[in-house]
Amino acid sequence: MTDFGLADTYVGQMKGVILTIAPEARIIDLTHSINPQNVAEGAFLLQRALPYLPPASTIITVVDPGVGTARRAIAIESQRQTFLAPDNGLLTPILVSDSPVRCFEITDRRYISPERSRTFHGRDIFSPAAAHLATGVPLENLGNEVDIASCRRIPLPVATPLGNAAWKGEILFADRFGNLVTSISSECAAENGPWILSTGTITLPISSTYGDVPDGAALAYPGSFGTLEIAIHNGNALQTLNILPGTPVTLNKGTTEAASA
Amino acid sequence: MTDFGLADTYVGQMKGVILTIAPEARIIDLTHSINPQNVAEGAFLLQRALPYLPPASTIITVVDPGVGTARRAIAIESQRQTFLAPDNGLLTPILVSDSPVRCFEITDRRYISPERSRTFHGRDIFSPAAAHLATGVPLENLGNEVDIASCRRIPLPVATPLGNAAWKGEILFADRFGNLVTSISSECAAENGPWILSTGTITLPISSTYGDVPDGAALAYPGSFGTLEIAIHNGNALQTLNILPGTPVTLNKGTTEAASA
Amino acid sequence: MTDFGLADTYVGQMKGVILTIAPEARIIDLTHSINPQNVAEGAFLLQRALPYLPPASTIITVVDPGVGTARRAIAIESQRQTFLAPDNGLLTPILVSDSPVRCFEITDRRYISPERSRTFHGRDIFSPAAAHLATGVPLENLGNEVDIASCRRIPLPVATPLGNAAWKGEILFADRFGNLVTSISSECAAENGPWILSTGTITLPISSTYGDVPDGAALAYPGSFGTLEIAIHNGNALQTLNILPGTPVTLNKGTTEAASA
Repeated sequence: MTDFGLADTYVGQMKGVILTIAPEARIIDLTHSINPQNVAEGAFLLQRALPYLPPASTIITVVDPGVGTARRAIAIESQRQTFLAPDNGLLTPILVSDSPVRCFEITDRRYISPERSRTFHGRDIFSPAAAHLATGVPLENLGNEVDIASCRRIPLPVATPLGNAAWKGEILFADRFGNLVTSISSECAAENGPWILSTGTITLPISSTYGDVPDGAALAYPGSFGTLEIAIHNGNALQTLNILPGTPVTLNKGTTEAASA
Repeated sequence: MTDFGLADTYVGQMKGVILTIAPEARIIDLTHSINPQNVAEGAFLLQRALPYLPPASTIITVVDPGVGTARRAIAIESQRQTFLAPDNGLLTPILVSDSPVRCFEITDRRYISPERSRTFHGRDIFSPAAAHLATGVPLENLGNEVDIASCRRIPLPVATPLGNAAWKGEILFADRFGNLVTSISSECAAENGPWILSTGTITLPISSTYGDVPDGAALAYPGSFGTLEIAIHNGNALQTLNILPGTPVTLNKGTTEAASA
Repeated sequence: MTDFGLADTYVGQMKGVILTIAPEARIIDLTHSINPQNVAEGAFLLQRALPYLPPASTIITVVDPGVGTARRAIAIESQRQTFLAPDNGLLTPILVSDSPVRCFEITDRRYISPERSRTFHGRDIFSPAAAHLATGVPLENLGNEVDIASCRRIPLPVATPLGNAAWKGEILFADRFGNLVTSISSECAAENGPWILSTGTITLPISSTYGDVPDGAALAYPGSFGTLEIAIHNGNALQTLNILPGTPVTLNKGTTEAASA
């Protein structure tokens, strides 16, 4: 996962480096379309994808506005996988919730590339180090052990409790279908309902899936990222509802009848 | 093949699920840029790519406006491959022309993911089922056998005979080069020529390749999808000719001299 | 590497052909976003990626405005890899600098596909030939040997000496981050400094990395492609500096104090 896009050859160069060192590696792309240098977006998308990443895999994540400064390059081992990233908060989901076990700084020159550029650590540090790990190099060979408590954490866009049985969050982004992804975990609305989701301009009950409402109607439902989403059944909510990322959203107990009363 | 795009992490999550179950799988992407929910476009592009898909492979195709409704998730075995898709017409090319052998509904909970969201069957149903098939699970384990005649078929955009030795079709889309792809099979013009292709604003003989005309000239020729195309030699036909998708196209016997007479 | 993009199914069809013939192949993408038919851009990006491509790999590069004309399809063996491409200058980096060993025309019908279209050699000629090479078919089986001196070369966008201790080049393109990539090799400024880079509207010393300047400041530095680049630290130089691709750039000995004097 990077913010490099696919138009430039950056990701291809990284894969070339990986296969040079680990010819048997299987490489998949989570996304390379993180908005440039948006570490918080990367951390959120990594967190939501964690349940689907293969166990025992080596995961390179690069969103790195600090490349070429003093920030560390780190490798964190969790119960399930190993993650390589700049120490800028991108691995917050591993640090806060996925049982980090050990962390090492990536400095050993046997496992990184001779320096050709000081601005592309994805290719010159993270790819070779990850490939060496994939071939069996022990994590502790990469460099000095790092206190996990010293690794940088950033706030993840999670909903906050809003008084009694209510939650406050926001619209994070719209996906390719125009579905509006909120920061409120689906679990908040899983029990003790009914619940209603409000944006200020629209108030919706929590449906379970598109088929619960007619074509063209808006609905709120547990979405693909494990958070509540707002969509139009067979339509585009972003275009139709004119609700932008950043819009506050609240989840309250109640019914839409009560809400409109 | 999906309509998920590559910017969101949807395709990456699917690949993570596949490699978790089938670590030896090799995964390739046909395209993820089907226009959102355009099942007919997906069916056409799948049909034209069939000759090039590896034998004995497992093919996931998801364009699924009905996700979260009662539509079935199915797996169809053909003489060459196994295809998984929503039962919404997307697999029409297999049903009408590629010797379908057996079809099963995908319901067995051993081979699909515990339900986390009811709106992402690509990740939660099709990917795990396909991965289990790839590891050797027999097709009949996925669920109840389905009568192939009951699977949904949709019209494919094929040319229709227009009286004596003539065909009527349309411009389907423009590719990245601006080449205009028609629905008229190249085989229609393969014999008994000469033939001419007309759009109303332009009439062209059937050339065999770009080199048959000078730089900057328009030509009609048998294209990469097995249908006739209109292009500008070293140019962009979509921009130059101003012919939009949906424009009717006819193929007639004759020469351009006769046509302009 | 192609100019096919990822929206159409062209690249997917190529990969299907490759895996049909060489099921064990591992395939990576360098980029498919070369601007349509821009052979010079493809040659430059291939050249800059060469140090990162796996040894002993088979590399298909297709940017092919001459497809369907008399131009040859060739396979060149270098000291490290084998490259397949149209003979249109795309392989200039191999011809001029990477120790080409042998070259063969790709014509043997055992190793290319039966002709279905005469406009998609990426699928019908280069992919099957490369896949056969990957399975162990000897290069000389592809067709007649070609004199390497007869292969087409094009000018690569390299900086030219400008009198005494100065270089003249240009802005080639901006990457996804808005960083402005020049044609002046980083090696020109590696020794005997200090050096300054000038575009006419801005004059900058050569820094070594982003951290050398404050947030929001412009810098020139050795970039990811092995050439000098201009960036804004944590910003977008393309948008901020309004310097377009094609803008002349000079590298001179000196300091910015001297330059502004």
